[in-house]
Amino acid sequence: MAVISGFPEFLPQGRLVEAQVIAILRQTFELHGFAEIATRAIEPLSELARKGEITKEVYAVTRLQATPGEPAQWGLHFDLTVPFARYVLDNAGQLSFPFRRYQIQPCWRGERPQEGRYREFWQADIDVVGQPDLAAHHDTEVCLVMLEALQRLHDEIGLPPARLRLNNRKLIQGFYGGLGLADPLGIIQLVDKLPKIGPAGLTELLTQQGLTPAQIDQVMALASIEATTDLADQVDRLGVRSELLDQGLAELTALYQGLASRFPDNVVADLKIARGLDYYTGSVFELELVGLESVGTVCAGGRYDSLATNGRQTFPGVGISLGISRIFAPLIGAGRLTASRAVPSAVLVAVDSPETRGQAEAVAAALRQRQIACEVSPNHDKYGKQIKLADQRGIPYVWFGGLTGQVKDIRSGEQTAADAATWTPPVADLRPAIVRTGDLA
Amino acid sequence: MAVISGFPEFLPQGRLVEAQVIAILRQTFELHGFAEIATRAIEPLSELARKGEITKEVYAVTRLQATPGEPAQWGLHFDLTVPFARYVLDNAGQLSFPFRRYQIQPCWRGERPQEGRYREFWQADIDVVGQPDLAAHHDTEVCLVMLEALQRLHDEIGLPPARLRLNNRKLIQGFYGGLGLADPLGIIQLVDKLPKIGPAGLTELLTQQGLTPAQIDQVMALASIEATTDLADQVDRLGVRSELLDQGLAELTALYQGLASRFPDNVVADLKIARGLDYYTGSVFELELVGLESVGTVCAGGRYDSLATNGRQTFPGVGISLGISRIFAPLIGAGRLTASRAVPSAVLVAVDSPETRGQAEAVAAALRQRQIACEVSPNHDKYGKQIKLADQRGIPYVWFGGLTGQVKDIRSGEQTAADAATWTPPVADLRPAIVRTGDLA
Repeated sequence: MAVISGFPEFLPQGRLVEAQVIAILRQTFELHGFAEIATRAIEPLSELARKGEITKEVYAVTRLQATPGEPAQWGLHFDLTVPFARYVLDNAGQLSFPFRRYQIQPCWRGERPQEGRYREFWQADIDVVGQPDLAAHHDTEVCLVMLEALQRLHDEIGLPPARLRLNNRKLIQGFYGGLGLADPLGIIQLVDKLPKIGPAGLTELLTQQGLTPAQIDQVMALASIEATTDLADQVDRLGVRSELLDQGLAELTALYQGLASRFPDNVVADLKIARGLDYYTGSVFELELVGLESVGTVCAGGRYDSLATNGRQTFPGVGISLGISRIFAPLIGAGRLTASRAVPSAVLVAVDSPETRGQAEAVAAALRQRQIACEVSPNHDKYGKQIKLADQRGIPYVWFGGLTGQVKDIRSGEQTAADAATWTPPVADLRPAIVRTGDLA
Repeated sequence: MAVISGFPEFLPQGRLVEAQVIAILRQTFELHGFAEIATRAIEPLSELARKGEITKEVYAVTRLQATPGEPAQWGLHFDLTVPFARYVLDNAGQLSFPFRRYQIQPCWRGERPQEGRYREFWQADIDVVGQPDLAAHHDTEVCLVMLEALQRLHDEIGLPPARLRLNNRKLIQGFYGGLGLADPLGIIQLVDKLPKIGPAGLTELLTQQGLTPAQIDQVMALASIEATTDLADQVDRLGVRSELLDQGLAELTALYQGLASRFPDNVVADLKIARGLDYYTGSVFELELVGLESVGTVCAGGRYDSLATNGRQTFPGVGISLGISRIFAPLIGAGRLTASRAVPSAVLVAVDSPETRGQAEAVAAALRQRQIACEVSPNHDKYGKQIKLADQRGIPYVWFGGLTGQVKDIRSGEQTAADAATWTPPVADLRPAIVRTGDLA
């Protein structure tokens, strides 16, 4: 067994689920006019290292026959944001801004293997990047597009409903500034740890930073706000005033309203959301699945005023990233999501002797002509054995004879005369269907 | 500029071409009942090293923070055959044999950068693997499926016609045996160099191996045979006899006939084709594009009696592999293949003020409801500027007003009243089309 921990692989029926998820995401993104790009798997280590926190998890790539001691130049990308920023700079002269792109590719991180953490994982990212500015309505747009994709995954595959938590870095930074804190960014990074370390742990850290008990109370009070329509009132009641706070609150309110008008049950303002990464400068988003909260954040993003810069130009952007493997690898791996069959074939064309294989091929060609996936039996065993092979693969129909032959639904046993030039299976049997075992939440 | 030589990337309109090629391949493979699998990017170096010749080109993958001097355990796969063989062994108990799979993924090789050679490249492989046996008709099947895919790429994208060259290792090995040569496999590997080193070079190598001038003449005579229907006669005339030769000739004749009945203009028996890799044991295939011979072999494969073995079981297989990047990266890179627009959007919905953005969103939602990809203008500039933005992106239609509004074909300038609940663009405008500049050959 050559399984490598953290590098999930699936049986064909599992890959069918993953491919169907990717197809739904692509369709949704393209309906909204997002253009696909694909970037190489590697980036210079210098690019990857910019996000300092994460370099310890980078996989370096070197030629096996490189001179020993020669330092590695490249690493596998650990997300799709760093490659995208580099791509925008490489191609800025040939792109039309605001540039709206999607990207669905594997990423790699040298995580310690543990439940739900993968070292190779698929992500689906959408971003909008402007030049020189980027309007605030794009923050709403990327969230709406992702919520629409998740709604389709809910309707078509049974994924639990999404809950999108929103915050704004200007709001928290302005609030901390209004409290008189010297290092608002430092405090944001500490508050981001709240879900992990709890209120007592955070109080201790904030005390170490020299915050007074009154200040800590205010930081805690802000972080505890979860609001829908009464967000402004709740923040107002804390009595802190700052221009940046007002601006962030206005942005967050507009974002919440834009989303709630379409997805009222899936959105909440949650002021403890901070996103540890320091490049976010406005809106921040985190998304969990209701009933699958234990999986954690499966989708996240935000606004960055300077995703990329080449010295002369700066490119503000907003994006959101969905962890495809994070959500689906455990469900597929555990067999809770699978496909109705392991092959695309709707029909197995039986063969009764080596001499009639050509006739069976002609039947298959006639069916394929009309987009009906099929395969010709690999052998000319007794029909019973050929039906058994179809059953093993989940193929619903077996064809006997020539172009005007007989077709058997092996589930019901019903057999009827059929013409390969006109016969069509019911739409539901044309392609493998996704099969869900129980409730996914 | 952060371009890394040998790692091609495309603008969105180039990626559209690549994605369309991949979609055509997927559709063709699935119509024939091939099931998709995807394997992880890395394999243990011990697996990759089995094909000794190639290890010098492997990219090793290590954690950046690994202990210095710690030897690398993993490498990026350099083809899709080695990972597939490992996958079959890993999952043999859960697969239905003959197992027919396709796989479309990037591969990596530490090639020296040169014209037409890539260090990251996409391949599309189909293989059929049996247990314990695999019938000969699968050799014909994998070639037919690939020829059908290339025929679609010819018809839909303008790819030059395919020419598939066929040979059989038993035939050449039997012939060399019949000539009394001690090391037929060694001679096969030398003859494989013929296209590179020419007859004089090969004669010198064979003389060094101790072959007599008469034997060398026979080896050369066999290698020079290119035949269609008169293959058996041409081989017969050389007067060499051996059982293995007869068996190989019968297999090659059957393969040729099976393919020529469907693709008479695209197939030829070419007895100098040997495929250097020593795991092939029967049929071998090489494919070039007529008029693009300078690109070399873009597709190759063959039969292997033992693709994989776990000691108890051996899995014979036959497969063929298409070099997607090998063919398309130069054509896309040079702009000879591009897309009619850089975005999926068929419609740009204009916005005349911040207050009517919601109305424009409603129009877009109504169009998307009917699978019409569209985007809402990012700004509320003068209409002339919004039309210019659509033109920049190649978007053919601009919508003005609300659900019952006006739609303008910006190519013709024609503007008509339209209802967002019913208006549909002509099918040809619904998706970006592939645009070819001149003849690709």
